[in-house]
Amino acid sequence: MSITIRDVADAAGVSTATVSRALRGLPHVDPETRERVRRVAAELDYVVSPSASRLASGRTGTVAVITPFIDRWFFSTVLSGISDVLQENDVDLLVYEVGDPGTSPGLPAERRLRGRVDGVIVVTLPTDAPRIADMLGIGLPASFIGVRWPGVPSVCIDDAAAGRMATQHLINLGHERIGIISGRPQASTSQANRALGYVTAMEGAGLAPDPSLEAFGYFTVAGGESAMTSLLSQPNPPTAVFAMSDDMAFGAIRALQRHGIRPGADIAIASIDGHELAELLDLTTVGQPVAQMGRVAADALLARMLGREAGETSRSVATTPPGSPYEITVPTTLIVRGSTVPIDRATA
Amino acid sequence: MSITIRDVADAAGVSTATVSRALRGLPHVDPETRERVRRVAAELDYVVSPSASRLASGRTGTVAVITPFIDRWFFSTVLSGISDVLQENDVDLLVYEVGDPGTSPGLPAERRLRGRVDGVIVVTLPTDAPRIADMLGIGLPASFIGVRWPGVPSVCIDDAAAGRMATQHLINLGHERIGIISGRPQASTSQANRALGYVTAMEGAGLAPDPSLEAFGYFTVAGGESAMTSLLSQPNPPTAVFAMSDDMAFGAIRALQRHGIRPGADIAIASIDGHELAELLDLTTVGQPVAQMGRVAADALLARMLGREAGETSRSVATTPPGSPYEITVPTTLIVRGSTVPIDRATA
Repeated sequence: MSITIRDVADAAGVSTATVSRALRGLPHVDPETRERVRRVAAELDYVVSPSASRLASGRTGTVAVITPFIDRWFFSTVLSGISDVLQENDVDLLVYEVGDPGTSPGLPAERRLRGRVDGVIVVTLPTDAPRIADMLGIGLPASFIGVRWPGVPSVCIDDAAAGRMATQHLINLGHERIGIISGRPQASTSQANRALGYVTAMEGAGLAPDPSLEAFGYFTVAGGESAMTSLLSQPNPPTAVFAMSDDMAFGAIRALQRHGIRPGADIAIASIDGHELAELLDLTTVGQPVAQMGRVAADALLARMLGREAGETSRSVATTPPGSPYEITVPTTLIVRGSTVPIDRATA
Repeated sequence: MSITIRDVADAAGVSTATVSRALRGLPHVDPETRERVRRVAAELDYVVSPSASRLASGRTGTVAVITPFIDRWFFSTVLSGISDVLQENDVDLLVYEVGDPGTSPGLPAERRLRGRVDGVIVVTLPTDAPRIADMLGIGLPASFIGVRWPGVPSVCIDDAAAGRMATQHLINLGHERIGIISGRPQASTSQANRALGYVTAMEGAGLAPDPSLEAFGYFTVAGGESAMTSLLSQPNPPTAVFAMSDDMAFGAIRALQRHGIRPGADIAIASIDGHELAELLDLTTVGQPVAQMGRVAADALLARMLGREAGETSRSVATTPPGSPYEITVPTTLIVRGSTVPIDRATA
C-alpha cells in the first residue's frame, strides 16, 4: 500500500493542506513546520505524484472554474483557495473568465467542457443564467460559490446576516440617516440578501430606509466613488453608509477625501469583504473567509467526483459546520476600525 | 472561406480584442461599440466557435500559465490579460500556482505538461530555476513575463530605468537620505535591476547609498511594514524611501501611520507598479502596464505556436514597440501623488 498525503499529515501532526503547501514551497507555512513535514515525508518515502492519485487515473484530472473576473480581489482569492485544494489532490485547474454577470452571455458552451474536465466550480453568477441548467444537464459534477442551486453543493456566507450586522453596527453608533451603496439595479440573490439585512436592521430600529439614500456602485472602486458622490449631492445626505463590498467602500472613501470629508469622523462607512487593504484604509468591514470559500467549494466538488463525503479530500472543510451537505455557510466577523465612530464623537 | 474574428474587427473598425470582449460580454467595451460589433457579427454570420479555430484543431487547445501566486494584484492582473488573449483565440487557460520563488520547488514536472498543453507562459520565476531548462527541453513553445531567457520571447519593463526614475524623482525633491525597500536577500534579475537603478540615480547625484538604509520586504504588505519599521529604528532614518513594489509601499505607509508619521509631509515614498489602489493611498509610483504584459506574452506565445509573427493573433501588441522579437519591453510612467513632496515643503 502506497503512502498517501494523509499518512504524512498524520505523522507530522498537521493538515493535508499544510503538507501540500510545505512540500510545494507555498507561503503560509512556518519554517519549522516546513522542515518537520519534509523530514516526515522523506522518512515515509512520500513523493508528490499525480500518477499515485485516484483522481488522475482514467479521467481528465482537470477541474474548470467559471468566474466573472480573475483580477478582482474576491475572485483571485477564491481562485487561490480552489487552486490549493486541487493541487493537494493533483488535479489541474482550468479557468474561464466570463465577465460581468450583468452583461455577460455567461458560461462557456457545454461542448467546451464536455470530455475536458471532471467537474466545474461556478463562482457568483446570476442564478437565472439559463446555461447553468444546460451545463448541469451534461452530467458534470459541480459546486457553486455565492449561489444556491437545487442539488448542487454551494458555499455562501449568510448575506442577510452580514448586511444586517454592518447596518446594526452603524445604528448602534447612533446613526439614523444610513445610506446604502448596492451593486446593480438587477440584484443577484446575494445582493438582494445583503439589502434585506440592511432593511431588517433599519426597520428593527424603527428607522425607515430612505430610497433617495440608495445608490449603485456595481461592485467596483470607481462605481463606489460615483455612488458616494451622488449620495453626497442629495438634499439631506446620510451620516453613515453601508457599502455592499470593500471595493465600493474604497471608492466611497476616495469620494469623501475629494470632498474634504473625513471617513469616520464626518461620515461613517461599513462594508462587507475583509479585503487585505481594508486595514490600511481603516475600514470597518464584515470579513468573509474568501480563500476558505474556494477551498471548501473545491473540497465539496472533489468529494462529489469521488463519491465521498466532503471533508475527506481535505481537512480545510472540517473547521466549517457544513449544515446541509448542499448548503455550506461559512462564518463572517465584524471587524471594527476607524471608519465607524459613535455619532457623538463625530462632527456631523 | 469562413468568416474570422479579424473580418468582424475590420468591418466594425475595432481590434479583434474588442470584438471578442463585445461578443463575450466582457467589460471595458462601451455599449455603442458592443452594439455595433454585434450587428456586424450578425450581418457577417460570424459565430464565436472553438471548432472554427486553427488553434483548437488537432491540438490540446490549452495553454498553461505557471505563476508564483494567483491572489496578488500583479499576478491576477497578468493572468487576466493572458486570459483575454487566449479567449479571443479560443484557447483554454490552465493555471499552476507554484508559490514563492524564494522557497518554491518551482515548476510542475514536465510529465505533467507534456501532451496536456500546446504552450507555457512562465510569470516571474527565478531565471536559475533548473526546471525551466527541463521544461523547454520537452519542446513546448513558451513565453516569459519578467524574466529574460535565451531564445524565449519575454515581456519585461526596463526595471533599471523604473528604479532610477523613482529614485531620481525623490532626489529632485531635495532628498539625500533615501532608503530602499528591496524584495529578498537573493535577488531575482528584475529586483537586481531595480536596485541598480536606485544606485545609479544616487551615484549620479553624488550621493552614496547607505547600506543601513536597505531593508527587505519580500514583496508583501506585511513585509513592507516590517521593513519600514526597521528603517525608522535606524540611528539616522531616511527622509525618503524607494519601495520596489506598491504592496511593500502600502505596508510602509501603514508603518508610518502607526508611528504617527505622515507619508509625503514627513517621509516621502515612491514605488513601482501602478496598483489600482495606489491612487486611493495617494502613492507616487512608476506604473507598469500589467494586464498588457499578460496580453503581449500570450500573443507572443500564440505566434510561436502558430509559426506566425507576434501581432497577428491580437492587435494588443501593435501598440508596443517590440524591439527584438525575443525581448519585448513595455513602457512605464511615473505617476506623482501626495506621498512625494519637495523636502522644503516637508517638515522633516
